[in-house]
Amino acid sequence: MLFKRIESEGLAHYSYIFGHNGKAAVIDPRLDCGIYLEMAVGNGYRINHIFETHRNEDYLSGSAELARRSGAEVWHADSQLDYDYGTSVKDGDVWKIGGLTLTALHTPGHTEGSMSYLLRDPDGNPWIVFTGDLIFAGDVGRTDFLGKENLERMAGLQYDSIYEKILPLGDGVIMCAAHGAGSVCGGDIAQRTYTTVGMEREYNPHLQYDDRNSFIKNTAKIMEYAPYFKAMEKENLEGRIMGGRMPIPMPLSAKEVHRMSQNCYVLDTRDYNAFASAHVPGAISIWAEGVPSFTGWFIPTEKPIILVNDSDNPKPIVRKLIRIGFHNLAGYLSGGMLKWHMAGLKSASVETVSVQELCGILDAGVETWILDVRSEKEQHRGRRIPNAHNIPVTHIIENMDNIPEDKTVFIFCGSGLRAMTAASLMKREERNNVVVILGGMSGWSSVTCELE
Amino acid sequence: MLFKRIESEGLAHYSYIFGHNGKAAVIDPRLDCGIYLEMAVGNGYRINHIFETHRNEDYLSGSAELARRSGAEVWHADSQLDYDYGTSVKDGDVWKIGGLTLTALHTPGHTEGSMSYLLRDPDGNPWIVFTGDLIFAGDVGRTDFLGKENLERMAGLQYDSIYEKILPLGDGVIMCAAHGAGSVCGGDIAQRTYTTVGMEREYNPHLQYDDRNSFIKNTAKIMEYAPYFKAMEKENLEGRIMGGRMPIPMPLSAKEVHRMSQNCYVLDTRDYNAFASAHVPGAISIWAEGVPSFTGWFIPTEKPIILVNDSDNPKPIVRKLIRIGFHNLAGYLSGGMLKWHMAGLKSASVETVSVQELCGILDAGVETWILDVRSEKEQHRGRRIPNAHNIPVTHIIENMDNIPEDKTVFIFCGSGLRAMTAASLMKREERNNVVVILGGMSGWSSVTCELE
Amino acid sequence: MLFKRIESEGLAHYSYIFGHNGKAAVIDPRLDCGIYLEMAVGNGYRINHIFETHRNEDYLSGSAELARRSGAEVWHADSQLDYDYGTSVKDGDVWKIGGLTLTALHTPGHTEGSMSYLLRDPDGNPWIVFTGDLIFAGDVGRTDFLGKENLERMAGLQYDSIYEKILPLGDGVIMCAAHGAGSVCGGDIAQRTYTTVGMEREYNPHLQYDDRNSFIKNTAKIMEYAPYFKAMEKENLEGRIMGGRMPIPMPLSAKEVHRMSQNCYVLDTRDYNAFASAHVPGAISIWAEGVPSFTGWFIPTEKPIILVNDSDNPKPIVRKLIRIGFHNLAGYLSGGMLKWHMAGLKSASVETVSVQELCGILDAGVETWILDVRSEKEQHRGRRIPNAHNIPVTHIIENMDNIPEDKTVFIFCGSGLRAMTAASLMKREERNNVVVILGGMSGWSSVTCELE
Amino acid sequence: MLFKRIESEGLAHYSYIFGHNGKAAVIDPRLDCGIYLEMAVGNGYRINHIFETHRNEDYLSGSAELARRSGAEVWHADSQLDYDYGTSVKDGDVWKIGGLTLTALHTPGHTEGSMSYLLRDPDGNPWIVFTGDLIFAGDVGRTDFLGKENLERMAGLQYDSIYEKILPLGDGVIMCAAHGAGSVCGGDIAQRTYTTVGMEREYNPHLQYDDRNSFIKNTAKIMEYAPYFKAMEKENLEGRIMGGRMPIPMPLSAKEVHRMSQNCYVLDTRDYNAFASAHVPGAISIWAEGVPSFTGWFIPTEKPIILVNDSDNPKPIVRKLIRIGFHNLAGYLSGGMLKWHMAGLKSASVETVSVQELCGILDAGVETWILDVRSEKEQHRGRRIPNAHNIPVTHIIENMDNIPEDKTVFIFCGSGLRAMTAASLMKREERNNVVVILGGMSGWSSVTCELE
Repeated sequence: MLFKRIESEGLAHYSYIFGHNGKAAVIDPRLDCGIYLEMAVGNGYRINHIFETHRNEDYLSGSAELARRSGAEVWHADSQLDYDYGTSVKDGDVWKIGGLTLTALHTPGHTEGSMSYLLRDPDGNPWIVFTGDLIFAGDVGRTDFLGKENLERMAGLQYDSIYEKILPLGDGVIMCAAHGAGSVCGGDIAQRTYTTVGMEREYNPHLQYDDRNSFIKNTAKIMEYAPYFKAMEKENLEGRIMGGRMPIPMPLSAKEVHRMSQNCYVLDTRDYNAFASAHVPGAISIWAEGVPSFTGWFIPTEKPIILVNDSDNPKPIVRKLIRIGFHNLAGYLSGGMLKWHMAGLKSASVETVSVQELCGILDAGVETWILDVRSEKEQHRGRRIPNAHNIPVTHIIENMDNIPEDKTVFIFCGSGLRAMTAASLMKREERNNVVVILGGMSGWSSVTCELE
Repeated sequence: MLFKRIESEGLAHYSYIFGHNGKAAVIDPRLDCGIYLEMAVGNGYRINHIFETHRNEDYLSGSAELARRSGAEVWHADSQLDYDYGTSVKDGDVWKIGGLTLTALHTPGHTEGSMSYLLRDPDGNPWIVFTGDLIFAGDVGRTDFLGKENLERMAGLQYDSIYEKILPLGDGVIMCAAHGAGSVCGGDIAQRTYTTVGMEREYNPHLQYDDRNSFIKNTAKIMEYAPYFKAMEKENLEGRIMGGRMPIPMPLSAKEVHRMSQNCYVLDTRDYNAFASAHVPGAISIWAEGVPSFTGWFIPTEKPIILVNDSDNPKPIVRKLIRIGFHNLAGYLSGGMLKWHMAGLKSASVETVSVQELCGILDAGVETWILDVRSEKEQHRGRRIPNAHNIPVTHIIENMDNIPEDKTVFIFCGSGLRAMTAASLMKREERNNVVVILGGMSGWSSVTCELE
Repeated sequence: MLFKRIESEGLAHYSYIFGHNGKAAVIDPRLDCGIYLEMAVGNGYRINHIFETHRNEDYLSGSAELARRSGAEVWHADSQLDYDYGTSVKDGDVWKIGGLTLTALHTPGHTEGSMSYLLRDPDGNPWIVFTGDLIFAGDVGRTDFLGKENLERMAGLQYDSIYEKILPLGDGVIMCAAHGAGSVCGGDIAQRTYTTVGMEREYNPHLQYDDRNSFIKNTAKIMEYAPYFKAMEKENLEGRIMGGRMPIPMPLSAKEVHRMSQNCYVLDTRDYNAFASAHVPGAISIWAEGVPSFTGWFIPTEKPIILVNDSDNPKPIVRKLIRIGFHNLAGYLSGGMLKWHMAGLKSASVETVSVQELCGILDAGVETWILDVRSEKEQHRGRRIPNAHNIPVTHIIENMDNIPEDKTVFIFCGSGLRAMTAASLMKREERNNVVVILGGMSGWSSVTCELE
Repeated sequence: MLFKRIESEGLAHYSYIFGHNGKAAVIDPRLDCGIYLEMAVGNGYRINHIFETHRNEDYLSGSAELARRSGAEVWHADSQLDYDYGTSVKDGDVWKIGGLTLTALHTPGHTEGSMSYLLRDPDGNPWIVFTGDLIFAGDVGRTDFLGKENLERMAGLQYDSIYEKILPLGDGVIMCAAHGAGSVCGGDIAQRTYTTVGMEREYNPHLQYDDRNSFIKNTAKIMEYAPYFKAMEKENLEGRIMGGRMPIPMPLSAKEVHRMSQNCYVLDTRDYNAFASAHVPGAISIWAEGVPSFTGWFIPTEKPIILVNDSDNPKPIVRKLIRIGFHNLAGYLSGGMLKWHMAGLKSASVETVSVQELCGILDAGVETWILDVRSEKEQHRGRRIPNAHNIPVTHIIENMDNIPEDKTVFIFCGSGLRAMTAASLMKREERNNVVVILGGMSGWSSVTCELE
């Protein structure tokens, strides 16, 4: 028996492989799909089927790539869309996979054609349901991809799918969704890394409303739509082929980076303190774990990227970029910023303050313009710094004009990470009068600044 | 959030590590416990607690070793026993582990002092119950360790523990037992690698009886007690320390093996065909996956062992042996049997027949003495070869006198693996007139031999 | 500074990577060239140049593949040939590689256009000479590829290249050849894994002759030419592209192998004892280390191959096959021969005897027909079994008619490995009356059989 | 045949393992000696002998540890010293190691009892000489360990050893020393990672003097003696046992580090830019590669250390510390400085300037006090910044009083790395008026600052 969940870090995307008696299937594979082949072939399993729960928009599907390498058949949900490859799934379709049985359940909501899949154990008992982006541990999928005009209709379908298709499976059935805590596809996914239908019925806050209308009213919301989603949607209909190998970005000398940086985006994934002290002028700061969620907001997928890293091993970042469609990797700064300095090149820096220092500044009554780059949801829910101006980091670029040029802008977020991203974006626009608050709201909450 | 199940292959033993916010705990660690430290420390977790569900008898606990390396506290179940280290757990004890809550549930049955542990998620909801050897997916733990006189009493306690402590937790709670399919601790564990309270309530055959008495009548059974269990029980009270490193058996030349084999057990874990063709005279054949379950039946834990392997990498076998208390590893035959032959040494062999050949022999009316070395349970349930004599492989040695010396003994089991073990044990006693049936009952079932 | 030798096991092929200050070069890369990229890019080096010492015939060059993945330029020796890619090298060409200097030396002999390359250290001192197949530790390259008519001319060129180009570099220069002990390209390569010009001058037996004529007379010999060499020569002019990933052979059930084995070659790389006891009828036995040297003699490169292995991990064998041009891998027997037996399928076997048993047979005066399948060189040099008939294993197929059908053929070689290969080839031709002598000449020498 | 060089990074220490026919030996093993066992046992070799070229002072020998794990015998050089274990070697001693021959050559110079070892290949030819710290590629070992009074005598012995024992072996013999470029034991070791007797005879600058006296005059020098050397010398006579496992430092929360930092040394091995921006107050900055050479100057080996790292993986640093005797590792800051900031704790910073900014400052005629912390040798050889004050980083602490408190101190070295170390040491003494010059002399040389 083979059953594994594969997590793509940063995206908090979960794919699954399962099998029995030498036959295996994969649910929602990612593009760098060698991991499924390793798990299968290395244990004597052949992957015969690839199932998609929906046409994804937040990452590149690996279905086409994995099909080419394994010989498996691809089964698409969202059959209303026009795929260039694979076969459409219908409600009630059944597959036998080495003694296991898988049944398709049409569960619209997140998309029109979303499918869930019920896996029965070798004895035929309902065992695991793969719910895609319909319902997560402690949250439900977003229903706004078809626009405002369809929002309530989709939320209603989602309600029906959950209540008529998923909950009736029984409390004891294990529930495997396509995302875990940390995903952009469900902001409130619980820290419950494994869950069951029963736990969701009882504890998922969105399954506690009085009725269908109340569910719709409370869950139907327009959320952020990252610019790179459009490219992912298109590519996932076409079927991206990577050819089995990750791109290998070449090491670049400091002088080469200096020359090329005019025509490339420089993506700096180092520790934010290191970025603050010195970075390649014009570089965008995104911490490593934030790369999957934030890069697509600031860099067009087709543009060449130069990586600046702490080490000479850019592979983990490359992997993250590939999964969200960035293939044009021009190289990385070999030897890191040390080599930049040793080449005598000019670096830029970002001023920082600790939360204690900020306290002192505020206490002293210095005039400050505080920019809170957390998401709207976080701003509404959490504690706030008084008089802060709110622009989520994902909307900094188009709101640059709303930030005063003649004042020192103190930027903060939850920890300082997104604040440094925002600072790097502002510095690209010659906004140099910026200060990042290290520790952010977390640090702020740890000190007793008598202000609020 | 950290949650992992660690499986020790061959034993089908499951241990668990979980943690949150930098604090972690381990349930029922194995002796080679570096894996928990890797998973914890490498992810910023410190192991503060080690919990045991019961005093184990089928493998060496790693609690003392892990405590020494991690600084964690050991919490023992079975507090009626006299441990040389650690602290006893009482029903209702509660631990806070980085925002998670763990509660001890006294659940006797497998042993007097067996404990289950209920883990609540960061929101405080009942999430996972660790049941040790009380109940498995599709099976329940054995209740015969206190002898025949306590058998029914223990089975009754087991019933009460399941019905009063586990099932009331709710169908949606995930159930994590100490063993999976393939364990010697529960012969019928289901191929459901993850399960829930609800699934067990509904599908576990032992939870479908009419009442407590019926449960006792059907489940209370005396099962096999391997000779090495006694040593494990003793060591698990004392707390075995390995000192953080696996023994490294030295490569031995063919001549050294030849000389030393007089005073050592030679354990041959190669492919059974290779053993059949040629082996070191006196060697015992146990296939690699069978080592944890069968070695303890035939070799005393303190005796020196020489390994014969397909490769020059004895590590996987060493790991299996260490876990069941075999530390006296004299070395391994470097270069394998090829070097034995190249040294001009005599080898022994075992005759084999395919099931088709056996058909031919039986059809021809040749007199045969067929020895079925499968367990009693398999012999009763499955198909049988007519006129076969039944002696489980684990009892071959003491039943040698019941096997005729003057007839050709055809040995079979499910696949031929245990048959080869039995053949090797017989050859050690100068019983050379043995033939192993390749493919065993599985192969037999695939051919149409018109006999039964 | 980067300097590594990469050995391809079985072929005893040595390739090299070296670099300085972020620039690197590779000498004679193999097809699975990820290893060079790992070594370079992971250490901040960019591979700018790929050098070939000659057009290879015994393995697929990775130059085209590596060039595509790294962006490096390919530099061909043997510029008299018509390459589809890359640039030709001329005697005296010089490259600067990050502060190191490399100079081309035209050193014909093994081929018309063979090149050696002298690497100078960062101070400009002569440091390492890469000699390709011109000269090895303790041996010289073969000179027979242009046929008998050119043999002496080529040997003369070889003498001139060594005496006029290599020895004058000075005794202290390190010498790096393209092959080590165990290669088919030089049967007598010394067990000196690193060597120098001085050591070769003094100890290489072929550098001790009186003069050029004596050198030619003693070294110019027609050697074996494996059938697959022709395909390698052609592909190495075209430039094989693998696309960055190894093929992944699919696991096959016993029944699938049974069905497909009619149209595929079954290559069994297990321990020879295991093969002797039971194998898929028609399978060819080649031990794992022997795969690179022997497969190309018995299986056409384009034919589909099914692998039979000890484990479910066919990767190491796949790697060996890919390097010599076998890409048509139909799959592998999942679960090994155990599953074959469990499916109730018929297997074949090969009779074996130990050297002691052979002694007994010979002593008893039983009429035997002994087949010695060692190479001619070994047969001439080493000890012999009296009255043995000599046919090298590589020529068994075309000499089948010279082996009597009506006698029991006892096959021996150095250890029994090639004898089992020969036995498997004979059994494919319905020659079932064969016996393999385990231990071969090595075992024979260890026992005192009073015969010779 | 087995022959490998094992490099311990940072120390540039080379140890060697070689073997043949199942027997192996190790030269100068390091403390974390699992690597030799892996290389040997995994390839069918048993380590029978461990040889030391001299009693080491710059790292912990692994001889005692490896002997305990492998059963090998330890052979000591420097038999004039009083070892607690092992056997002394005499000039001319010979060992047979699986067909190889090793001969001891007494080669005093670096120490009184230094030994070299000549390895002959399987044919008996002189092949490789292990020279320990007598002679390196392009350099010779230091001869000052017995003090000024013995300096010239030892240098004379060194001359004799090289000219009478090593050079006569012949130019073609490969020379394997105990250190490569980057070692503290020979400041000028060449970037020639492999060398020969012939290359050294011809290119080693110290082998080009007119005569013995001239050699002594030019090479006999008193060099730096790191404080931790004393501890290493003592432990290497006693034989340190680690017990086969590396210590695992525990993850510590920011608050724990804050509390414990009063009684521990905080060692920060992050990127120097990150350290400049924010660090735990009182932390000492040493870049990862510098840890082996510099930690022993600033931290007593017995004191508890807390590590601050970029990641949650302190293993590579732990390994470096263990090798130079630091075993008291209190833990590491889990989650890095981000967690420190998020806990609202105060951090310290170091001001930095780029070389261009320094140019501007100097051009503007601002009064500066420039501190050059490079070694004396570098200061004498290389370019200099005008009016710089020279104190090597290793002597900053005892020279603190010679650095003005009332001026801004601009610190520079080759690249800025040691300058940051010096700055961190000064800040521990409340010297906050310090500025580190990023890029150091390397950056300085790349810009055209018209000053010198």
